[in-house]
Amino acid sequence: VTPGLVRDLAAIVGPKAVLDGEAARPYQRDSTEMQGLAGRADAVVLPSNVEQVRRLVAWCYEHGVAIVPRGGGTGFAGGAVPVEGGVVLSLERLDRVLRFDPELWRMQVEAGVRTGRVHRLARENGLLFPPDPGAAEQSTIGGNVACNAGGPHSFKYGVTAHWVTGLEAVIAGGELIRLGGPLRKDVAGLDLRSLLIGSEGTLGVIVRVWLRLTPAPEALIPVVAAYSSPEAGVMGLSRVYGYGLLPAALEYFDAGAVAATRAAFPGGLPEATAFLVVAEADGTRQGAEALAAEVAEALAEGALEVRRLGSPGEIRDLWRWRNGVSFAVSAQLGGKMSEDVAVPLDRLGEAIAMVVEVGQEHGLRTCSWGHAGDANLHATFMIDASSPEQVARASAAASSLFARTLVLGGTVSGEHGLGWVKREQFDRQFGPVEATLQRSIKALFDPRGLFNPGKKLPPIG
Amino acid sequence: VTPGLVRDLAAIVGPKAVLDGEAARPYQRDSTEMQGLAGRADAVVLPSNVEQVRRLVAWCYEHGVAIVPRGGGTGFAGGAVPVEGGVVLSLERLDRVLRFDPELWRMQVEAGVRTGRVHRLARENGLLFPPDPGAAEQSTIGGNVACNAGGPHSFKYGVTAHWVTGLEAVIAGGELIRLGGPLRKDVAGLDLRSLLIGSEGTLGVIVRVWLRLTPAPEALIPVVAAYSSPEAGVMGLSRVYGYGLLPAALEYFDAGAVAATRAAFPGGLPEATAFLVVAEADGTRQGAEALAAEVAEALAEGALEVRRLGSPGEIRDLWRWRNGVSFAVSAQLGGKMSEDVAVPLDRLGEAIAMVVEVGQEHGLRTCSWGHAGDANLHATFMIDASSPEQVARASAAASSLFARTLVLGGTVSGEHGLGWVKREQFDRQFGPVEATLQRSIKALFDPRGLFNPGKKLPPIG
Repeated sequence: VTPGLVRDLAAIVGPKAVLDGEAARPYQRDSTEMQGLAGRADAVVLPSNVEQVRRLVAWCYEHGVAIVPRGGGTGFAGGAVPVEGGVVLSLERLDRVLRFDPELWRMQVEAGVRTGRVHRLARENGLLFPPDPGAAEQSTIGGNVACNAGGPHSFKYGVTAHWVTGLEAVIAGGELIRLGGPLRKDVAGLDLRSLLIGSEGTLGVIVRVWLRLTPAPEALIPVVAAYSSPEAGVMGLSRVYGYGLLPAALEYFDAGAVAATRAAFPGGLPEATAFLVVAEADGTRQGAEALAAEVAEALAEGALEVRRLGSPGEIRDLWRWRNGVSFAVSAQLGGKMSEDVAVPLDRLGEAIAMVVEVGQEHGLRTCSWGHAGDANLHATFMIDASSPEQVARASAAASSLFARTLVLGGTVSGEHGLGWVKREQFDRQFGPVEATLQRSIKALFDPRGLFNPGKKLPPIG
Repeated sequence: VTPGLVRDLAAIVGPKAVLDGEAARPYQRDSTEMQGLAGRADAVVLPSNVEQVRRLVAWCYEHGVAIVPRGGGTGFAGGAVPVEGGVVLSLERLDRVLRFDPELWRMQVEAGVRTGRVHRLARENGLLFPPDPGAAEQSTIGGNVACNAGGPHSFKYGVTAHWVTGLEAVIAGGELIRLGGPLRKDVAGLDLRSLLIGSEGTLGVIVRVWLRLTPAPEALIPVVAAYSSPEAGVMGLSRVYGYGLLPAALEYFDAGAVAATRAAFPGGLPEATAFLVVAEADGTRQGAEALAAEVAEALAEGALEVRRLGSPGEIRDLWRWRNGVSFAVSAQLGGKMSEDVAVPLDRLGEAIAMVVEVGQEHGLRTCSWGHAGDANLHATFMIDASSPEQVARASAAASSLFARTLVLGGTVSGEHGLGWVKREQFDRQFGPVEATLQRSIKALFDPRGLFNPGKKLPPIG
């Protein structure tokens, strides 16, 4: 550890905002704890304003100390885990809503504002902030932007990047850059904003963002369809596309995911359910009703059951169930390794089958679920995370899964990012020219390689 | 001119695909001709496939010859004009639709495919490619992507970038890079795709793109509202926002724009019309009807007239009129300088007034119209383009307009890009750190500075 590190950081943020020991422990993990990953930081700091972030970054940059930016710690790729030490820079105290103009459909917030708070503020004012990557009460907008998070409603509404019109970030040396603002259109420069979005803390620390909002739909009507086989379900999904129907969300759950969560499903499911589709029609009351009816019709052929959930209670229960799937699956064996691969839409059925095959090859229980409309799977290997042997087996399975995903023309990450756990996939997914361009841009922003080192686009060798 | 240039280029593309003299003339201009801009290329080449583009770029890069990529030549910023010589690389012969999967809502096309063709192909299959930057029969998808083009329907549907899931580009040395593909979600790398989109040919030549499509709305219902003052019209617009209504398009036309085009407006306009709002509700028949009624209600207060256009004939005439506004305005004095500034939504009224004020200060007739919902104006100074004095006066007025736009927190370009005519605004809009980052990225992609030199982000000094 750099001499004087804790003392110098404390001089910037105050001694209470530098954590160590037990207090620091929760800041050295994220959701990859379920596969046994943990880090060890030289220090955890909790700045409370942008000026402190600038000074912290300047200090770290001057002293050659790595900076690991951290939002809510809900990531699935180890992006916020200080695997190789360094200073964890948690943005949780930058939690101010700086401006909210409901009549202009926009909001400016600090990076540490919880996603759920943005959702509620918008909704209370008749508006919608569509990205809903899950864990909304823990995850932060800064983390969502840094990962370009998705979620079920990205199918209709697009991912986080589509809703960010401006951001400010602290880069090398503690410089604050401002990219965009409360503008709905801007093509004056090269799109550095999109470059920062999804960069997973490897280029700088996002500290403030301008969000675009949209009028909230009047009604949400889920439609659920249960099938006895994945083939029948995938056929149903393809009819939704083929009929030209655009629900807000279009999710699927395979037999393993259904088995792990069946008990909590509102209203129950037919005994033979081996594949489940959940769509949500939104719009005006009339529009959502009409769309839900069409979606139900598209999903009907070959289904064991198709039904619409009508009451607010059922709808709330459905999404509570949906948000609990990941935890319920983890609870089966005590841990999981879950990979968010995405494929071209016409390869969805193959990709779902592939997860099962890879699991069988490696002797692991599997399941998958996810954003069927975007062909973005959560391909999951269920393990006991305390068993190094099982973790190793799941890692081998994941590696095989990634290779086969690329053969299908897919990506190793549709919404979680590469972080630490998928860093080795970077050079598998990208050709040498594309990889070199990305590493060169990283070096431009971060010449000393101190922002989240080793993550996403690791140094060669 | 580099010795052997024409011979060597002809060896790559064939002698008929290297133009000079009269044949080359149309390729040395774009819409800035209306303000007197023209260039002079060393040669104009028309490759017919990606391999030829690679070889042309490799040759130019090796010989230090500038490359000016060109789509349909409909730009308003001189981005495709060979102002400082070099080789104009027209992509018009790369006009193949490589793949169209209507049931998967996606299409892969070469850069030279006309935007109108994409629109038609989509529509004939029940789908929509929403970006509609105008001049659809001339402009190309490659040009739209290179400029991140907008258009009226960006209000609801977003700009071109939102509809591009993948692209291929030829960069320095003739390397072909592939960024994304037919994937709806992908966060594996840094977002180089967004960096290329809107880069105006300064980083490389876009040769192929994957487009995302969406189901076409069943019905389109325009609502037009005429007002006797801009203040009354802007109040109407703000009520559309305030009521939480999301039409597909929300356009405005000031008194000057109305005066230039009044005769062609379907059904005529009240005599006292000094400000016009055109909204378009879309959706299912019922949904569009309901929305149109709500939009009409929001626009009603203080209006001279509000009406819905019902028949297909009226709707077609309306958009034909809309597409003719730019030409009609040009026809007033024989030319115009039109700037696509954008501001935060709450500054729209001020920005519209500012255009008039700046015109008065410089003794120029002005008008403005544009994408009110995105606060993206086409601020226009009407001139006789053959008068150098008037061109100079309009340039001074534009410079003042840009400065005042930045004071309002706006951008000098909402959808046209900076190209050549706004290159000097680059360092006015961006701070030194942001500008240096952009120039460094340019240098990474284009170390010899041969891709569209001087455009968008010109070398310092």
